[in-house]
Amino acid sequence: MGRWTPNARGRLEAAALELYEQHGYDQATVTQIAERAGLTERTFFRHFTDKREVLFGGAQLLQDHLVQRVADAPASAAPWEAVTTALGGAGEVFPADRESSRQRQRVIAAHPGLQERELIKLATLSEALSGALQRRGVPARTAQLTADTAIAVFKAAFTRWLEMPERPDFAALIQEAVEEQRTVVAG
Amino acid sequence: MGRWTPNARGRLEAAALELYEQHGYDQATVTQIAERAGLTERTFFRHFTDKREVLFGGAQLLQDHLVQRVADAPASAAPWEAVTTALGGAGEVFPADRESSRQRQRVIAAHPGLQERELIKLATLSEALSGALQRRGVPARTAQLTADTAIAVFKAAFTRWLEMPERPDFAALIQEAVEEQRTVVAG
Repeated sequence: MGRWTPNARGRLEAAALELYEQHGYDQATVTQIAERAGLTERTFFRHFTDKREVLFGGAQLLQDHLVQRVADAPASAAPWEAVTTALGGAGEVFPADRESSRQRQRVIAAHPGLQERELIKLATLSEALSGALQRRGVPARTAQLTADTAIAVFKAAFTRWLEMPERPDFAALIQEAVEEQRTVVAG
Repeated sequence: MGRWTPNARGRLEAAALELYEQHGYDQATVTQIAERAGLTERTFFRHFTDKREVLFGGAQLLQDHLVQRVADAPASAAPWEAVTTALGGAGEVFPADRESSRQRQRVIAAHPGLQERELIKLATLSEALSGALQRRGVPARTAQLTADTAIAVFKAAFTRWLEMPERPDFAALIQEAVEEQRTVVAG
């Protein structure tokens, strides 16, 4: 089915983000995205179900990665250690090009519907982490509280990651946010 | 405009919750809600903009109440103390009839679109608390982390509040969740 196109997915993503930012997410069409990437619509639909998935396709990958890391934590690891260590490894699945992540955030920030989708993504991630903790034997209520508290840390670290001029070590940013949060809740 | 109807809002709410639960949220119509409450559609629209607002109309009230309490906290209160004390007072604006809150949760749990709306409500509340903390001089990043961490506590306490057989003191449940969270993040 069709010729192999080097890095078609990456080219489609870059073209889509440019279009979303320059002309607005609602205005952009798949036809325009494919054209700008020098590819066909058919190729677009081999990689994405729709134009929204360009922005949120990475969420499942991130979630699977984190859930696996929580599962793989040593049996001796406390729930908080298991989940924050997993979050520290999220940098492994972030795009190599940090500017594309920033562009994505700007597109989302400009569109209420996409902001809602982003919130739902984080809540789904929290549920998934809670599930992973429960499979480690953590009671449901504590697992949910732990996961929700960890998502607060993740949001803080990710915002910082986008802002910093040089590409920072995500694990170090998670650690910083964990420490700041511990100070906050100590009163 | 129309006769005064005793507790029209409460009757419409009760009728709507019953219908949503028995026949499904999507199926219920404003006509049916009004009929079941023994009122007119016109009266419904004096109290609610649409059938979704029956479920989420209290969110703004809760948010205003909590933001005001954060603003009113003594200048000496640390951010965490200000925000968790405010949350402890949320019980003041919860419905007197706890069964209606449980019914509301069941309706939301059965409907993905309403679950999303509930998440957005909590995220909006978090933003509002973060804003209130910033007006107390807390830097933006710390304010957001503090508010998001507090929302994790709020969710835990509210779930517990719904589950408990006797009407519990919400402030005590917030305090319990705060302590559990502190234990969690201590590792």
